Amino acid sequence: MEHYKVIFQPETREVEVLAGTDLMEVMNDAGVEHDFPCGGMGRCGKCRLKISHGLNPPTAREKEILNAGEIEDGVRLACLTKVQNDMVVVTEGDKKLQHNILLASEERPFNIKPHLNKIFINIEKPAIHDQRSDWRRIKDTLRKNGCEYNDLTVPIRVLRQIPAVIREAGHRITLVTDGNEVLGIEAQDTSEKMLGMAFDIGTTTIVGYLLNLCSGEILGVASTLNPQTRFGADVISRVNFAAQNEDGLDKLHKTVIDAINMLIGKASGEAGVSRSNIYGVSIAANTCMHHLFLGITPENIAAAPYVPATGEPVVAAAEELCIEINPAGRIFVLPNIAGFVGADTTAVLLAAELEQSEDIKLIIDIGTNGEIAIGSKAGIVACSAAAGPAFEGAQISSGMRGADGAIDHVHFARQLEYSVIGGGAPLGICGSALLDTVAGLVELGIIDKRGRILNPDKLTNPAGKRFANHIIEHGGQPAFLLVPAGKTGHGRPITCTQSDIRELQLAKGAMAAGVKVLIDKLGIGTGDIKEVLLAGAFGNYLNPHSACVLGLIPMELEGKIRMIGNAAGTGARLALLSSDEYRKAGDIAGDVEFVELGSYPKFNSIFGECTYFTIQDKN
Amino acid sequence: MEHYKVIFQPETREVEVLAGTDLMEVMNDAGVEHDFPCGGMGRCGKCRLKISHGLNPPTAREKEILNAGEIEDGVRLACLTKVQNDMVVVTEGDKKLQHNILLASEERPFNIKPHLNKIFINIEKPAIHDQRSDWRRIKDTLRKNGCEYNDLTVPIRVLRQIPAVIREAGHRITLVTDGNEVLGIEAQDTSEKMLGMAFDIGTTTIVGYLLNLCSGEILGVASTLNPQTRFGADVISRVNFAAQNEDGLDKLHKTVIDAINMLIGKASGEAGVSRSNIYGVSIAANTCMHHLFLGITPENIAAAPYVPATGEPVVAAAEELCIEINPAGRIFVLPNIAGFVGADTTAVLLAAELEQSEDIKLIIDIGTNGEIAIGSKAGIVACSAAAGPAFEGAQISSGMRGADGAIDHVHFARQLEYSVIGGGAPLGICGSALLDTVAGLVELGIIDKRGRILNPDKLTNPAGKRFANHIIEHGGQPAFLLVPAGKTGHGRPITCTQSDIRELQLAKGAMAAGVKVLIDKLGIGTGDIKEVLLAGAFGNYLNPHSACVLGLIPMELEGKIRMIGNAAGTGARLALLSSDEYRKAGDIAGDVEFVELGSYPKFNSIFGECTYFTIQDKN
Repeated sequence: MEHYKVIFQPETREVEVLAGTDLMEVMNDAGVEHDFPCGGMGRCGKCRLKISHGLNPPTAREKEILNAGEIEDGVRLACLTKVQNDMVVVTEGDKKLQHNILLASEERPFNIKPHLNKIFINIEKPAIHDQRSDWRRIKDTLRKNGCEYNDLTVPIRVLRQIPAVIREAGHRITLVTDGNEVLGIEAQDTSEKMLGMAFDIGTTTIVGYLLNLCSGEILGVASTLNPQTRFGADVISRVNFAAQNEDGLDKLHKTVIDAINMLIGKASGEAGVSRSNIYGVSIAANTCMHHLFLGITPENIAAAPYVPATGEPVVAAAEELCIEINPAGRIFVLPNIAGFVGADTTAVLLAAELEQSEDIKLIIDIGTNGEIAIGSKAGIVACSAAAGPAFEGAQISSGMRGADGAIDHVHFARQLEYSVIGGGAPLGICGSALLDTVAGLVELGIIDKRGRILNPDKLTNPAGKRFANHIIEHGGQPAFLLVPAGKTGHGRPITCTQSDIRELQLAKGAMAAGVKVLIDKLGIGTGDIKEVLLAGAFGNYLNPHSACVLGLIPMELEGKIRMIGNAAGTGARLALLSSDEYRKAGDIAGDVEFVELGSYPKFNSIFGECTYFTIQDKN
Repeated sequence: MEHYKVIFQPETREVEVLAGTDLMEVMNDAGVEHDFPCGGMGRCGKCRLKISHGLNPPTAREKEILNAGEIEDGVRLACLTKVQNDMVVVTEGDKKLQHNILLASEERPFNIKPHLNKIFINIEKPAIHDQRSDWRRIKDTLRKNGCEYNDLTVPIRVLRQIPAVIREAGHRITLVTDGNEVLGIEAQDTSEKMLGMAFDIGTTTIVGYLLNLCSGEILGVASTLNPQTRFGADVISRVNFAAQNEDGLDKLHKTVIDAINMLIGKASGEAGVSRSNIYGVSIAANTCMHHLFLGITPENIAAAPYVPATGEPVVAAAEELCIEINPAGRIFVLPNIAGFVGADTTAVLLAAELEQSEDIKLIIDIGTNGEIAIGSKAGIVACSAAAGPAFEGAQISSGMRGADGAIDHVHFARQLEYSVIGGGAPLGICGSALLDTVAGLVELGIIDKRGRILNPDKLTNPAGKRFANHIIEHGGQPAFLLVPAGKTGHGRPITCTQSDIRELQLAKGAMAAGVKVLIDKLGIGTGDIKEVLLAGAFGNYLNPHSACVLGLIPMELEGKIRMIGNAAGTGARLALLSSDEYRKAGDIAGDVEFVELGSYPKFNSIFGECTYFTIQDKN
């Protein structure tokens, strides 16, 4: 078979590949950072790059997505390009997009109760008249020190270390234990060294908190974009990748494990501690990320009836998952509630202590799948609303993630005002800005209750009329111009098209319908809800007023909204610092009643209603 | 560095090695079967082979051990030869010595109680209104079937299999469980398929019994010489090998694991069953073999104060030890009593039910280290007597293992009569024949109570006088000629030299002293012992009368001797077939009182006395 050379600019990386290989595969294998939001399905058109040598003719799909100038300039979609000759490919370079990752969150009181214990002991030395085995002397010493263990067990891995460690250490050792199990043996007194890392593995981002397991102190935070993104931006793309490639599951699994190990190294390096002092890792993740982390197929989550492999806490040895911490360390994976209400929601509920609340609260974590829970100590119901990728900026014509260059907020004052993440000329809009835009258009009467952009001459709202000249045609459909081509970073206009509004309507309709169903399920009224907690990155960035204007959250609850930040991260930290909290997470996952919206009576009509906008005059 | 070619005949294997490499290492690495009884220390002189091309001049030690004719013929010791040029080496070939391995043993009644269970269940299928996780549905089905588990756990390895297995199997599955732990999941009903293998790992031989774990039926037996022999014939040589080579422990560990896997393959192949239906393996072994099997350093066993790493039952997952059976399978290692009273003795005691006996019994397992136990339900004491290798035929001038060509029994009738294992011309004597020879010489008054071979003219016993012409000089010392050069298989005479007798005196003295000390320790008289049980290969082959004449066993107990065969193998089978018996083995190891002979008051004088012979006139 013929081979071709592919050179990536500006890093001048060079690889040799078989003729006909997909460029996406080449880039993934070579570790060239590039986003494939739709997982390489040729749908989103966002993996564009420039080919300065060895250009193929454009495919039909590329002709649809790219304009004539771009095609002429050598711009192509990486996912649709096959290597047919030697090529030079110009990417954005290895400088990763500065992504805004939500780290902060509310805290709540709790008691530290480590999963693992360390016990320092001074073992009696053997003698010719005392030939007790090493292990027996360890146990006898523990008993003398008042540690009563029944059936203390020790794995072979540790047994192999015992003879050398106790002799090198002059019989002064520290045992690492989990209940009745000895997980590790260390020379001298290391009982003060007990670190851990709590992770929130999101579809898009991974955040890890380095903790002192004795004091609970946060010693550092490290985060990264989830590198699985290169196999697909969303859950479904990754499930497809796992299902359609023989080693797909394995690749996805290894990728997230590598990322976790990288973050452990980064956080411990920055904090000046050794990763070998890390004994515990906790994991909160949505059900798909949870399965991929554990190396379990996510296929059955993605197709009806959406069944996860397990909904219980999973405890694993560090080495079982190749997590590079102390070999005695353990991984504490939080439990899932359902196929689309994952361990991250469990962590949010744990952080919010909903199961102990006297008041009924509504918790929303908005994303591609919005998780919604309502309840109190009397009981909790939860559902997942398939909002689609609109809130993440995907499948929105000018959409992008909340990274540098994204417009994150829009305000309709006398003029259109907006803010750009990182400053500078804007490149697109992220979900929170889309919300602001559409909410503003609703309030200004520029779109009607069905979501249709009105002709400029149909506008009646005086404030709305000021923006009449923003209503343009773009790509054959009505659109609202946010930033003209001359003022953007890439020279293309930033707009909100009629299709974008349709996407948002589906998304917000799904969320609103979910809230309605849960209220109905509990047999309460909207007014019975005493607080609305917005969790997660999107919930933290959005303008609550915009969300209420759109009906994403019932308008009557606007005054009760509180943002709780990265509550999934908080839950992961609680579960790592306290075995009681981890056990509680298991109880929560088992007790929450999951409601499948798809099979809920009249769901379709509820959803349909919820896609409408409620027009309220702004003035 | 220069490389040389080494060709092994008669198999014409060819290897290329670095100049200066030890030939022993070359042979081990190339898998050329050859015995190094002293572990390559240049002591025993038994690793001789012929070098037909590329001969080195003989070393000083070779000149001591080999005679001039041999040196001229190109005979050298493999352990003292370094590769200094291209060589052709003539070995005995790959046909392994047919070694007599003891398989048979006494049985005793017991109740089968498998360690692992299999449960066939028909799981409810999921539906859109029933999205319980796979694992939850398994647990719920178990509960409906009346299996009440508390905190049933499942390892990630199994969790990963669950989604595919239950769907492929139409939700009809069999679970493999150990207590509250699910170890495996299998499609359809496999509950009848439960095999296991019980092993007795001796220093010299390994025997494995293939069992039906449901019925207890023995489906096959497979045995082999312990391939660790190539790193040393005895325990101490192997410990030295482990201590002196960086990867020594690893090599010894892997070698025994490979042998176990080979025997599993052989036994299951011969029985026409799949090794994947094997779910349990039990291991009885002396403490050193036990540690090597588990990959634990045996160094601290071999040097005072002779401390093993553990004296408790060790249960491991099959994959933890790379044992090639069903991945759900478990390895049940029996517990050691002390550094030189190993799990094999525990197994013997378990088989003999000494801890339940009303009568006081003496159990002896004779070998390089003779394990001795005396006791009853009132209590058991045990010790190890360092008998040295005489009983195994090592360090005896004409000694060899009990393999084809070995004289195994000698009888002094009118003429000298002997039997040869496998028939044919004899090659040497094994331990049981040495015992017969020396016992005969004692009874014939050919040696005195101090063990000295008398001058032919000093003989007084008429029967003894008939063998006066057998008393010769050999290698500068008095010797008793058993077979003249002309009648042996190799053309060298087979003799019992004065040094051989000294070796035997040390060996039998150690055993007899051990018995005396234990009797003393229990405060009983020899006559209180109601039965003497001889376990192990040597105990099974020896002539009890010879043993009593020599004082190895007190003469007054001669009528009470019973041979119980490979009782260690029986114990291993019991521990595999019944978790109760395995638990009992743990109790035995914990309860038996170990007596260190070396530190016992007046041991040296007791031992000294025991090296003498008690002369009783035969006529």
